[in-house]
Amino acid sequence: MDKNKLQIILQNLYDQKLSPDEVINQLATLPYENLDFAKIDHHRPLRNGYAEVVYGKGKTADQLVAIIQSLYKAKSDILVTKLAHKAYENIQQELPPGCIYDNISLTLVSKKKKVNKLGHIVIVSAGTADMPIAEEARITSEFFGSKAEKLFDVGVAGIHRLLEKINVLREARVIIVIAGMDGALASVVGGLVSSPVIAVPTSIGYGASFNGVSALLAMLNSCASGVATVNIDNGFGAGCIAHKINILGEKNNH
Amino acid sequence: MDKNKLQIILQNLYDQKLSPDEVINQLATLPYENLDFAKIDHHRPLRNGYAEVVYGKGKTADQLVAIIQSLYKAKSDILVTKLAHKAYENIQQELPPGCIYDNISLTLVSKKKKVNKLGHIVIVSAGTADMPIAEEARITSEFFGSKAEKLFDVGVAGIHRLLEKINVLREARVIIVIAGMDGALASVVGGLVSSPVIAVPTSIGYGASFNGVSALLAMLNSCASGVATVNIDNGFGAGCIAHKINILGEKNNH
Amino acid sequence: MDKNKLQIILQNLYDQKLSPDEVINQLATLPYENLDFAKIDHHRPLRNGYAEVVYGKGKTADQLVAIIQSLYKAKSDILVTKLAHKAYENIQQELPPGCIYDNISLTLVSKKKKVNKLGHIVIVSAGTADMPIAEEARITSEFFGSKAEKLFDVGVAGIHRLLEKINVLREARVIIVIAGMDGALASVVGGLVSSPVIAVPTSIGYGASFNGVSALLAMLNSCASGVATVNIDNGFGAGCIAHKINILGEKNNH
Amino acid sequence: MDKNKLQIILQNLYDQKLSPDEVINQLATLPYENLDFAKIDHHRPLRNGYAEVVYGKGKTADQLVAIIQSLYKAKSDILVTKLAHKAYENIQQELPPGCIYDNISLTLVSKKKKVNKLGHIVIVSAGTADMPIAEEARITSEFFGSKAEKLFDVGVAGIHRLLEKINVLREARVIIVIAGMDGALASVVGGLVSSPVIAVPTSIGYGASFNGVSALLAMLNSCASGVATVNIDNGFGAGCIAHKINILGEKNNH
Amino acid sequence: MDKNKLQIILQNLYDQKLSPDEVINQLATLPYENLDFAKIDHHRPLRNGYAEVVYGKGKTADQLVAIIQSLYKAKSDILVTKLAHKAYENIQQELPPGCIYDNISLTLVSKKKKVNKLGHIVIVSAGTADMPIAEEARITSEFFGSKAEKLFDVGVAGIHRLLEKINVLREARVIIVIAGMDGALASVVGGLVSSPVIAVPTSIGYGASFNGVSALLAMLNSCASGVATVNIDNGFGAGCIAHKINILGEKNNH
Amino acid sequence: MDKNKLQIILQNLYDQKLSPDEVINQLATLPYENLDFAKIDHHRPLRNGYAEVVYGKGKTADQLVAIIQSLYKAKSDILVTKLAHKAYENIQQELPPGCIYDNISLTLVSKKKKVNKLGHIVIVSAGTADMPIAEEARITSEFFGSKAEKLFDVGVAGIHRLLEKINVLREARVIIVIAGMDGALASVVGGLVSSPVIAVPTSIGYGASFNGVSALLAMLNSCASGVATVNIDNGFGAGCIAHKINILGEKNNH
Amino acid sequence: MDKNKLQIILQNLYDQKLSPDEVINQLATLPYENLDFAKIDHHRPLRNGYAEVVYGKGKTADQLVAIIQSLYKAKSDILVTKLAHKAYENIQQELPPGCIYDNISLTLVSKKKKVNKLGHIVIVSAGTADMPIAEEARITSEFFGSKAEKLFDVGVAGIHRLLEKINVLREARVIIVIAGMDGALASVVGGLVSSPVIAVPTSIGYGASFNGVSALLAMLNSCASGVATVNIDNGFGAGCIAHKINILGEKNNH
Amino acid sequence: MDKNKLQIILQNLYDQKLSPDEVINQLATLPYENLDFAKIDHHRPLRNGYAEVVYGKGKTADQLVAIIQSLYKAKSDILVTKLAHKAYENIQQELPPGCIYDNISLTLVSKKKKVNKLGHIVIVSAGTADMPIAEEARITSEFFGSKAEKLFDVGVAGIHRLLEKINVLREARVIIVIAGMDGALASVVGGLVSSPVIAVPTSIGYGASFNGVSALLAMLNSCASGVATVNIDNGFGAGCIAHKINILGEKNNH
Repeated sequence: MDKNKLQIILQNLYDQKLSPDEVINQLATLPYENLDFAKIDHHRPLRNGYAEVVYGKGKTADQLVAIIQSLYKAKSDILVTKLAHKAYENIQQELPPGCIYDNISLTLVSKKKKVNKLGHIVIVSAGTADMPIAEEARITSEFFGSKAEKLFDVGVAGIHRLLEKINVLREARVIIVIAGMDGALASVVGGLVSSPVIAVPTSIGYGASFNGVSALLAMLNSCASGVATVNIDNGFGAGCIAHKINILGEKNNH
Repeated sequence: MDKNKLQIILQNLYDQKLSPDEVINQLATLPYENLDFAKIDHHRPLRNGYAEVVYGKGKTADQLVAIIQSLYKAKSDILVTKLAHKAYENIQQELPPGCIYDNISLTLVSKKKKVNKLGHIVIVSAGTADMPIAEEARITSEFFGSKAEKLFDVGVAGIHRLLEKINVLREARVIIVIAGMDGALASVVGGLVSSPVIAVPTSIGYGASFNGVSALLAMLNSCASGVATVNIDNGFGAGCIAHKINILGEKNNH
Repeated sequence: MDKNKLQIILQNLYDQKLSPDEVINQLATLPYENLDFAKIDHHRPLRNGYAEVVYGKGKTADQLVAIIQSLYKAKSDILVTKLAHKAYENIQQELPPGCIYDNISLTLVSKKKKVNKLGHIVIVSAGTADMPIAEEARITSEFFGSKAEKLFDVGVAGIHRLLEKINVLREARVIIVIAGMDGALASVVGGLVSSPVIAVPTSIGYGASFNGVSALLAMLNSCASGVATVNIDNGFGAGCIAHKINILGEKNNH
Repeated sequence: MDKNKLQIILQNLYDQKLSPDEVINQLATLPYENLDFAKIDHHRPLRNGYAEVVYGKGKTADQLVAIIQSLYKAKSDILVTKLAHKAYENIQQELPPGCIYDNISLTLVSKKKKVNKLGHIVIVSAGTADMPIAEEARITSEFFGSKAEKLFDVGVAGIHRLLEKINVLREARVIIVIAGMDGALASVVGGLVSSPVIAVPTSIGYGASFNGVSALLAMLNSCASGVATVNIDNGFGAGCIAHKINILGEKNNH
Repeated sequence: MDKNKLQIILQNLYDQKLSPDEVINQLATLPYENLDFAKIDHHRPLRNGYAEVVYGKGKTADQLVAIIQSLYKAKSDILVTKLAHKAYENIQQELPPGCIYDNISLTLVSKKKKVNKLGHIVIVSAGTADMPIAEEARITSEFFGSKAEKLFDVGVAGIHRLLEKINVLREARVIIVIAGMDGALASVVGGLVSSPVIAVPTSIGYGASFNGVSALLAMLNSCASGVATVNIDNGFGAGCIAHKINILGEKNNH
Repeated sequence: MDKNKLQIILQNLYDQKLSPDEVINQLATLPYENLDFAKIDHHRPLRNGYAEVVYGKGKTADQLVAIIQSLYKAKSDILVTKLAHKAYENIQQELPPGCIYDNISLTLVSKKKKVNKLGHIVIVSAGTADMPIAEEARITSEFFGSKAEKLFDVGVAGIHRLLEKINVLREARVIIVIAGMDGALASVVGGLVSSPVIAVPTSIGYGASFNGVSALLAMLNSCASGVATVNIDNGFGAGCIAHKINILGEKNNH
Repeated sequence: MDKNKLQIILQNLYDQKLSPDEVINQLATLPYENLDFAKIDHHRPLRNGYAEVVYGKGKTADQLVAIIQSLYKAKSDILVTKLAHKAYENIQQELPPGCIYDNISLTLVSKKKKVNKLGHIVIVSAGTADMPIAEEARITSEFFGSKAEKLFDVGVAGIHRLLEKINVLREARVIIVIAGMDGALASVVGGLVSSPVIAVPTSIGYGASFNGVSALLAMLNSCASGVATVNIDNGFGAGCIAHKINILGEKNNH
Repeated sequence: MDKNKLQIILQNLYDQKLSPDEVINQLATLPYENLDFAKIDHHRPLRNGYAEVVYGKGKTADQLVAIIQSLYKAKSDILVTKLAHKAYENIQQELPPGCIYDNISLTLVSKKKKVNKLGHIVIVSAGTADMPIAEEARITSEFFGSKAEKLFDVGVAGIHRLLEKINVLREARVIIVIAGMDGALASVVGGLVSSPVIAVPTSIGYGASFNGVSALLAMLNSCASGVATVNIDNGFGAGCIAHKINILGEKNNH
C-alpha cells in the first residue's frame, strides 16, 4: 500500500465512513510497506543522497550500462567497484559524461559536485601488490566524503619505514591497514595507536597464504586490541565502515 | 506502541481531534511493532498453538526449570532437545508433572493431550550408533503431530537389509535418512524413492570422518535428486521440516 | 533374465515339466534383474513419463547431441542443465526442433506439450548475481510441473524489500531461498514462514566466501527451523525436491 | 639508556666537553629506548590512565594474584577477562578489596572511582547462549568509559523481535552484534542502520557450525556494508574497538 | 515374502490353480527379499562362518554384553574393536568364558578353535606410539586367519632400522604400514617392495598433524605406486583388507 | 663404487695385499651403492622387465620426447599417463612407431609384444563423467598384465543397474570402484562382495564436492570393510595396486 | 650381521678359505646392516654421545621409567619433553638421581657433567602464555650445548618493548621466535636482523586461531626473508635446529 | 628529521643557544627516524651491499623495468624471482646489459662482479617437476654468495638413489630439501644427517595434495629433528635462510 492508499483510509476514518476498529483491522493486514516511506526517510541520507554503489563483478556490459545510465538520470553520484579493465573497455563508449575510471583500484566514479572532505582516515598498506585494494579503500572513503591519507609500502619486514611515519598514524581518526601474506602490519599498527583500526587482508602471497586466509586469520587474531577485520580484498567495505566511523567525530561537532 | 495506543490515535482521528495528515506523521514514526499483533496472529499457530521447543544444551539447571515451568503454566506443550543425562538429573525434581524424558534421544516431552498422528514419515538410519539422532527426529516429528515409522540399522554395507524394506520406503510421504561415516545411505534411499528425502549427517565415525563432515559432504553431493540436508546431528531440524512437508498432504485434503 | 525367460520357466512349471522345487532353485540363482520390470514400472512415472534430465557440464558436443537426439526420438521431455554458452553454440545446429535455450540459467528445455502447472513454489533470491541459479531452480520446478513464482533481489541488506512481500512468502507451499555471501536470507525467510524452506547457497561473493562455503555453512546452521540445504549452486536439486514437496499437496486432493 | 644518561651526554655537549659530532656518534649507537619516555607519554593515556586488561585464561592462580596485586598497588583500574569459575574461586581469598566478579561474562573488574559513561553503544545478541560474550563486550566497553545498552535475544529466526526495537538500534553511535550459528543477525542489523557495526561470532551451535566458523564466515561476507568482524568469542575485542569508535564523537565535541 | 510363500505360489502354479501370467504379476510386486535366501548364501561364508566384528566405541555396557552373549550362543567367533579400558572393566564380569582382552589394541577376541594361520602379512609401524593401531591390525588379520609378522618402531628418522629388515619386507604377500606425523614410512616401504601396501595414518603427533590429517594426506599422495590408504587409526580396516588380499594367494593354490 | 671395485678390494684381500682390518675400514666408508646390484636385481622385474611409467603432466614436449625415445631404444614397454590432448599433439610427430594414444584416459601406450592377461579385475564406475579415470585404471592394469572388465555407469542413484550385475562383481579377484560426488558406490560395492576393493575418488561434482574431497572422505569412511582408497583422480595408482593384488593369485598357482 | 661376522668372512677370504666371488655373493645378499657400524659412527656424536631425547607424551609410567633407567645405565644424558605434571608425579619416585623436572616447560633433564655452552641463541617470545614452549626451546638448545638468552614477553602489540632490545637481537647467531595468535612477531624480528630466524607457532589464542594455525600460516607467509618454521608448539624442534645452526659457527673456528 | 637537523640542534646546544633540557624536549618529540641512519648502517650489508631482490609476480612491465633500471643505475646486484616467461618477454628489450634470465627457475640475475662462493649448501629435490623451485633456491643462495650443489631427482620411491649419495649429504653445512606430494624426502634426509635441513614443499601433485598442503604438513610434522620449513614453492626463501646459515661458518673463521 502506498501513502495515497493510507491517506484514503485515514480520510475515511476522519470522515467517519470507517470506524476505528475497521481501520485497525485494515492496518493489521497491511504488508510492511505501508509505513515504508518512514523507513526510507531514515535510509535516504545514506543510500540515495550520497551515492549508489554498484558491484561491477559478474555483471554483463548491458546490465552495467543500464544501471549506470539509470543512476545518472536520477542525478545520483555513482561508484562502481571491481570493474575489470576488459569490462570497462566494453562499456566505455556508452558511459555518461563525467565518469572517471581508475585502472589500479578498478573503480569507476561519477560525482555531481565536489564536496569538502571531512575528518582524517589514514590508509596503510604493506606492499605495492596491495595497492589495488588500498586504492579501492581510499576512493571509497573519499567518495562518501572522508579525507583519506595514503601511507603505502610500509610492511613490517622493514619496520623503520613505518616507525618513521608514526606521527601520521597517530593523527588519524581511524586507520585502514591493508596487507597480505602474514598480515602482521595490522597488529603492529594496532599496537602503535589508540584509534580504531580496520584491517583488510589481501589475497597477495603464494603457497600457504591460501589467497588471503593467512592474513585474514592473523588479523582476526591480532594481539593488539582495537582491530576489526573485513573480508579478503574488501577495500570497499573497509572504506565504507572507516567513513562511518570517521564522520562520527564530525557529526558531534554540531 | 501497543494496540491500545494505536486505538487511541485512530479514535482521535475518528473524533476529528487529529487530522489525517497528523495521523500519517505519527504512524510514519512508529516502530514496526505497531502492527505486530497481525504478524503474531499468523505466527501463533506454528509457535504457540503447537508447542514450544527448548534447546537444552548450554543452559543452566535454573534457566531450564524457569523456562519449562513458564511454558507449563502457559498450558503449552513442551519439547526440550539435547538434554544431557546429567542435566536431566539436575532438574528432575523440579519438573512439572507429565514430563517424559527419553535417555536415548536426550529429549524431554510434555504433551497436554494425545492427538491423532497424521501422514507418514519414515525414518531410516544406518547403524545403532545413529539411534540417538534418529530418535530425536522421530520424537520431534511426532511431537508436532506426524506419524513416524522407524527403519533402523539398514546401512549400505549390507544393502539387502534395506532392499527388503523397499515397500516401507515407497509408502512414505517424506523420508528422513540418518547416517554417519560415508553418508551413503542418503544416496541409495534417494535413488529408490520418488518422495522428498531429508538427510541428517551424524558425527558417528572416526579419523577422517571429522565429526560428521564426511557424511555431510556426501549428502550434499548426493548423486540422487530429491535430497536436502540439515546440519550434523540435527535430528530436531530434520523432524521439524519433515513434519512441515508431511502435513502439506493433510492440509490439501480439505 | 528378461520377462520372456521368466515366462518360459513358469510355463514349464504350469505344464509340470518342472517341479516347484526346481523352479525355486532356478529363481534363487537369478540375478536381481529378473524382477526388474516391476521396479521400472514404479520408477517410470518419475523417470520416463515426466522427462529426462541431462547434466550438461563436462560432456562433449557429440555426447550431448547423441543423448538429446535419443531422448527426442523416445518422445521424452528433455532438460539439460549447466549448459554453457559455448557448449550450446556447438550443438545448436544439430538440436531437434522445439528446444529452448535459456542463457541466464544455462538450461535447455524441450517439452512435448504444455501442462497445467500445479501448486505454488516461491523462489526467493538475494541479489542479481544469484539469478542464474534462481532461474535454474525455477525452470527445473516448472519443467516437472510445478507453478513457481519469482521474488528476486530481496537480500537482507535492505530487509524492507523482503518484508513488503511477506504475503507472497506466506502463500507458498514450499520456498526456495537462493543466496551467496552470508546466506542470511535463508534464516530470515525461515523465521517468517511456516512452510518448508529449501536453501541453495551460491558461489557468489569474494574473499572468505570460499566459493559458497560461507553461505553453505550459514544455511546449514540456520537458527530458523524448517530449513534444509542442497549443494552450492545446485538450483536443479532445489527445484527437484521443491517440486516433490509441492506435489504432495496435489496428490492428496484426489 | 635512561633519561639521566641522555642528560649527562647533552650536558657534556653544552659544557663543550663533547663536540656535536661525538654526540651524534653516541646517539647513533643508542638503542631505541633512549627516547622511550616520549613514546610512553603518548601511550599512557590509553594503557595506564584508563586501566590494565589481563587475559585470565591459562594463567596460574599465583600469576593472576601477583598481577592483580601489582596493578592494585599501582592504583590502576583492573579488568580480567575469561576468568573461569574455578580460577576465580582459587584466587578469591587473595584479591584486593573492591574486585567484582561476574560469573556470566567471566570477568573481574576493579574500578577506582565511578566515571560518567559516555556516548551510546548498543549490544545486540541473537540468543541466550550468546550472553556470556555479549556481557563481556558490555562490561569491557563500560570499563573503558562507554555507555552500553543491551538488546539481547533478538535473533533473526523471529525477526519481529528485532524490528520492534529499530529505534534503539538507530540511536546508537556504534553497534556490537553478537551471534553464533548462521551469524545472520549482523547482516540484518547492518542493513537497518547507518552506524558502524562490529560483529562478534560466537562458538554457539553444533555440527557444521565448527565452533563459530560458520558465523565468522557469514559475518565477514555480510551483504550489508559497514560491518567489521573480530575473532570468535572475542567480546573483549569488540567492546574495546566499539569504545574507541564511540569516544570519537565525544572527543570532537571539545 | 518368505520362502514358504514362494513355494505356495509355485505349487499353485504347478497345480494349475494359477496361470503363469497371474504368477508373473504376483512376482512383479514382490519385494526384493523374496530371493534373499540366495544372496544370504553367498554372504554367509564371509559374515557368519568366520566371525562377527563389533565396533565397541559408543555402545553401552548393556548393549555390548547383549551382543557378545548372543554371538557366543550362536557359537560365532567374536572380535570387538576400540573397546576402551573402562568399557572392558564394566562388562568383564558378564563376558562368556574364553574372551581375551588386549589392553594395547583395545580388542576383545573369542575364537572357538585354533586354525592354521595362512599366508604372510607384515605389519610395519613407525613409532611406539603407533603400537595400539598396529596391534589392532595384527589381531584383526590373525582373527580372520592370516599369518602376521610385526616390524615395529622402524620410522624413517632412523632409516637404517628399516633397511636392515628389507628381507622381511620383501617376503610379505601384503604389507600394512602404520605411521602418524609425516606418514613418510608408507612411501619409503612402498618404494622398497613390489607387493601391495595398505597404509594406515594414525592420529599420533602434535600441532599441525591435525590428529592424523598430515599422515593421511602424505599417504594418499605417496610418490610410490602400489599404496592404498584406509581411514585414520583404522587398524581394523587395514587388517581386514590385508587379510582379503593375503588369502587370494591361498585360494589359488587349489 | 661399482662391482668391479669391490672385486678388486676383495681380490687384494685374497691375495693378502690387504689385511682384513684394512678391508673393513674401506668397506665401512663405502657408500651404499656398493651392494646395490643386489637390490637392483630384485627391483628389475617390477621396474624394467615390465615397463616404465611416465607421468605426462608438467613435462615439456622436449622432455617427453627424450624420455619416450630413450625408453624405446631400451626396448622397454612404455606407459605415459595424464598426457593432455595438446601435449600429445605437440609430440605426435616425434613418437617412435607403435605408440597408441587414448584420448579419453589421456594415456599413451607402447607394448613390445602381446601377453596373456591374467586374473580378473573389475572396474566399476558411477557415471560417464568418471570414465577418463576409469579408463586410466583399466589401461594401467592391462598394461601391467592383468585382465580387466568394465562395469561403467552404475551409480547408486539407480541402484538396480548395479544389482543386476552382482555376479560380475562377485567373480572379480579385486574390484576398483571409481566415483565422484558422494562416493557412495564404494560402500555399496564393498558391502556386496568379499574381495578387496580399491576406491578412487574423482574430482567430478560441483559446489561442496570440493574437487573430489567429498568422495575421498566418504570412501575413507566407508562403512563396508575391505575398502582402501587412493588419491583423487589417481586411476593409475588404483590400476597399479589392483594389478599387484590380482597377480598374487597367479603367482601362487605355481 | 654384526661386525664380527664380517670380520670372520674377510678373515676367511684372507686365509683363502673363501674365494673373492664367494665373498661377493655373501655380501650381495647381506642386509644393509652389514656396514651399519660405519653409519652408526657418524651418527653417534649426534645421537648417543650427546644425549637421548624421549617424547614423554602418550607413554605409560612403566614405559617412561624403563626408558629413563636404561639411558641412565648407559650413562647417557637424558631429555624428556612434553612430560605432563601428572606423568612426572607418577614416575618421580622411580627416577634415577640427578633428574631435574621443569614444571613450566614440562621437561626432565639429566646431564652427566656440565659443559661450556657455545655460541649465542636468542629466544624471543610474544607473551607469558608462550613461556612453556619458549622454555622448552631454551632447555633443549642448552641441553645440546648452546648458549641461549631469553627475551620474553615482547609481542608486537607494544613494539617498543622489542625495539628497546634490538641490540640483543642483533648479537644472536640464530634467533628462535615463539608466538601464538597472529604470529606477527616472527615477521617483525625477521625484518630487524640478518641472522636466521626459526619461528615456532604456539597454540595460544582463541576462536579463529584454530590452536595455532593462524600463527603457523602467518609465519610461513612471513614477509621477512630468512625465516623458517617448525610445527605448532614444537619448542624442542626449534631448539634442536637452532643448536645445529649455532654450532656451525663453532665448528669452523677450528 | 634528517641528520642535518640533528646536527643543527646539537650545534645549538654546543653553542649554548639551547639548554640541555630544551634539547631533551626536542629529542623526546622526534619521530624514530632521527636515529635511523644508525639502523641503516647495520642493514646495508644485507640489503644494499649484496643485492636487491624483486618479487616479479603481479608487477606490470613498466613497474619491473623502472625498478630494474633504478637498481642498475645504483650499481646494485639484482635478483628478480617468479618472473614468468611472458613477463620476461615483455621487458626483455628494455633491460640493462648483463641481465641473465633462467627460464626454468623464472629468475633474472644481474651481478656486478664474480665473487668466490662460500661454504657448502646441498639442494636435494624429489622429482623433475620440483626442478623450478630447486633451481630458484640454488640461484638465490648463489646470488647471495653461497656455494650450492645439486642432488636432484632422488625421491624416496627409489630410495637407493638417495642412499648412494649419502656422502654428498653429509658434507653439506646446510641442506635444502624440495619435494611435493608426500614430502617424505625431508624426513628421510633429516634422519640421515646432523646438519640443519630447510624443507620446501612444492605444489606438485594432484588430487588430495591440495597444491602443496600435503607436503607442507608432512614436512612440519617431520619425525626427524633438525628440520624447519618455508612456504610452499618458496625456493627463494629457502635459498635465503640457507645462505644465512651457511655463512655463519664462514664468519667464524676470522
